[in-house]
Amino acid sequence: MAEKITPRDVDYSQWYVDIVLRAQLADYSPVKGCMVIRPRGYAVWERMRTVLDAMFKETGHQNAYFPLLIPESFIRREAEHVEGFSPELAVVTHAGGEDLEEPLVIRPTSETIIWSMYKKWIQSYRDLPILINQWANVLRWEKRTRLFLRTTEFLWQEGHTAHETAEEARDETLTILEIYRKFAEEYLAMPVLSGKKSEQEKFAGAVDTYAIEAMMQDKRALQAGTSHFLGQNFAKAFDVTYQNRDGRLDLVWASSWGVSTRLIGAIIMTHSDDRGLVLPPKIAPTAAVIVPIFKNDTRSKVLDYAEKVRRSLSEVDAVMDTDEQNSPGWRFAEWEMRGVPVRVEIGPRDVEAEQVVLVRRDTGEKLTVPAGAAPGKVAELLEEIQRALFDRARDFRDENTVRLDDYAAFREFFADAGGFGVSPWCGGEECENTIKDDTKATIRVLENDAPRGEAGSCVVCGKPGTYRAVFARAY
Amino acid sequence: MAEKITPRDVDYSQWYVDIVLRAQLADYSPVKGCMVIRPRGYAVWERMRTVLDAMFKETGHQNAYFPLLIPESFIRREAEHVEGFSPELAVVTHAGGEDLEEPLVIRPTSETIIWSMYKKWIQSYRDLPILINQWANVLRWEKRTRLFLRTTEFLWQEGHTAHETAEEARDETLTILEIYRKFAEEYLAMPVLSGKKSEQEKFAGAVDTYAIEAMMQDKRALQAGTSHFLGQNFAKAFDVTYQNRDGRLDLVWASSWGVSTRLIGAIIMTHSDDRGLVLPPKIAPTAAVIVPIFKNDTRSKVLDYAEKVRRSLSEVDAVMDTDEQNSPGWRFAEWEMRGVPVRVEIGPRDVEAEQVVLVRRDTGEKLTVPAGAAPGKVAELLEEIQRALFDRARDFRDENTVRLDDYAAFREFFADAGGFGVSPWCGGEECENTIKDDTKATIRVLENDAPRGEAGSCVVCGKPGTYRAVFARAY
Repeated sequence: MAEKITPRDVDYSQWYVDIVLRAQLADYSPVKGCMVIRPRGYAVWERMRTVLDAMFKETGHQNAYFPLLIPESFIRREAEHVEGFSPELAVVTHAGGEDLEEPLVIRPTSETIIWSMYKKWIQSYRDLPILINQWANVLRWEKRTRLFLRTTEFLWQEGHTAHETAEEARDETLTILEIYRKFAEEYLAMPVLSGKKSEQEKFAGAVDTYAIEAMMQDKRALQAGTSHFLGQNFAKAFDVTYQNRDGRLDLVWASSWGVSTRLIGAIIMTHSDDRGLVLPPKIAPTAAVIVPIFKNDTRSKVLDYAEKVRRSLSEVDAVMDTDEQNSPGWRFAEWEMRGVPVRVEIGPRDVEAEQVVLVRRDTGEKLTVPAGAAPGKVAELLEEIQRALFDRARDFRDENTVRLDDYAAFREFFADAGGFGVSPWCGGEECENTIKDDTKATIRVLENDAPRGEAGSCVVCGKPGTYRAVFARAY
Repeated sequence: MAEKITPRDVDYSQWYVDIVLRAQLADYSPVKGCMVIRPRGYAVWERMRTVLDAMFKETGHQNAYFPLLIPESFIRREAEHVEGFSPELAVVTHAGGEDLEEPLVIRPTSETIIWSMYKKWIQSYRDLPILINQWANVLRWEKRTRLFLRTTEFLWQEGHTAHETAEEARDETLTILEIYRKFAEEYLAMPVLSGKKSEQEKFAGAVDTYAIEAMMQDKRALQAGTSHFLGQNFAKAFDVTYQNRDGRLDLVWASSWGVSTRLIGAIIMTHSDDRGLVLPPKIAPTAAVIVPIFKNDTRSKVLDYAEKVRRSLSEVDAVMDTDEQNSPGWRFAEWEMRGVPVRVEIGPRDVEAEQVVLVRRDTGEKLTVPAGAAPGKVAELLEEIQRALFDRARDFRDENTVRLDDYAAFREFFADAGGFGVSPWCGGEECENTIKDDTKATIRVLENDAPRGEAGSCVVCGKPGTYRAVFARAY
């Protein structure tokens, strides 16, 4: 620990991996593509889950739990769904000492198993809406994996709702998109664009997919959450009808939506620096660390005082550094590596002067305050850091977002450092593919949901653009 | 809903299933042996998890997450472990469109994958203890399943700790056993015996297994939680050594422990009655329901008043019954089926008299109190119900626990209604098997951990009994 990590400008990918491993957020496991989420990483996930779960419950959602294993035939029932997920499935062929008659797949997502249950539970409009969320593990067999950002197994929440009308299901889709935006911006201090995906980028089985997209420090985009309007696709596949208010049978309308442990990767890549992890205070398991510094003759004096300060900070999640082996410099570096937002330094002179030294993790700024003022000042600093992290990330994104109406400039932008390129797009898959082939950039979100005339001329073909699209290279 | 359920004395098993399905706690799924935990059942699990998680954290444990899939060879490394779990494994042989070189099993428990990681993380005594818990799904391919009590997939927590000394690991094992006992008795209102298992009944891979055992209303035992002292078995299997305080290499000592969604089955079978679910208030997602009763001309008067009462009950989790379709009797029966501890009835006459009628779910007892006294009285009733449920269950268990020193009486006891039979036992597997063959009763816990002389003469062979053992037929 407290070894140096690779600086971002030397090797951005290695910098990321160094932080995950050295801050002990996660570790590689013996199973290809699967990671172990270590206690410090899991504590961040617990914070996220607590906040999101409360937001879901406030909007009328309930949690439930559906089986991990899905009959293979279920996945095949929705044509686009099977096409999207088939290459990624892990299949159980053998169980309890026998070959299975029908193979079972480990859920890559739970639409199919859940809609097979909704068929049992939904008879009439009185049974609707169903607003169910599940916290679970899912598995997608990925060729190339990266800790948190893309792992074979990951933890997530998946909401699956059933409604009487298309309008209600669309409203639900957008309500959740807004919850995701709010959560990302207000808790993760991560500015996001939210909007619809192109046909090509949407979820396999959705009518429309909406997403929140953030910009990482290497200017690449990261999809941080998705909310899908599923139309009646899964109701058709599983024959889920209900008796409507006029007494006729209708197919049920649906949405599904999710965020995952990928968010931990997103906050690392948004906020951290060459000294290690930087965590937004609202999601940091430890808000402040008290580091007492002493020699033998000042030990008890400093420790007694530090303990008093710790008790005065009981309102925030403050911990005491009890390390007596290593130098102060080593210990400071260690707590910086772990991303604790505020460090409280206490030495013999601080005891004399009845003061403490507060150090911000984000800026390194130091300030000395009277011990009595510490609780108020720490709380204030935590709020300031939360705000400053968001502002810095938003400024960075805005500086690296460019309107590009000309294809030569577009290609140059992505040949260079890149970022978010906002361009008119005709809506054609051909132009989308041309861009992908030429620049590796994909459409992250559309600025406007529906085609409209005034978007300009398509940056590739010059035909009237019906959308303005945000292009970027993405994780 | 509100259909009658099968009475216990007609068909106890069917009574149990009726409650699970009609109270919408869980449902059968299309995957053999796997259940769906519906929102009302999951809310109970969330309550349990919140309480237990806090108890674990207070005693220094942290949560983490390890992979679902385990290389098949790992399971084979500990001889007893593989023997115990092999018949129950589900095996992934195919993933990402290819056959796997080494099959992966879905975790039946995580000792092996976790100890493969501990090998990476443990070098010196400074890395110990490790006190990690995981909330996860596990899978054991069961031939005969029963909702909540025995399902192929279930949710649980599994603690896995690593220590410098045997004594520390044993202390941990017993600390957790005591947490389980306290949780069962104080929160689930379920009296338990806690103690060591016989060699035959212990966990595959443990040196010693301890358990908490409860008596269900059909007088059968249910193992509600286990805590294992693993010795150095997994440290040996995964070669996990540490440099001790004397600078020498030593094998690490271990414990593991868990409780599962089986606990939901346990509380149903402990407390419920022929009218449906009965939940201990401390674990009930809804503590009280307000049922307004009115005709057209009294509707707004009653509803306004009921809403005022609801607001006055904001300290407890109170909900309003908004059903205007069904009769009061039907609605009362419905809330009884769901197990809500207190019903608050409000009719036009109660509005006039500024009173409410409170009905206890456990006894059906009604009492009329002034509206202003309702919050205090409801809180008091919840405490009384919690205590009464525990007392009733403990009395029932004690009435059905018999000391049996004679084998003829022992056989008669189990040929008849059975219960807990407490008998001297020589410690021999042969006598244990004789009892199992003759009566289907197994040793649930030993009253004394270590052999001792004064336990009497073995109930089967008459040799000096070294243990007093609690025998019962079990779930």
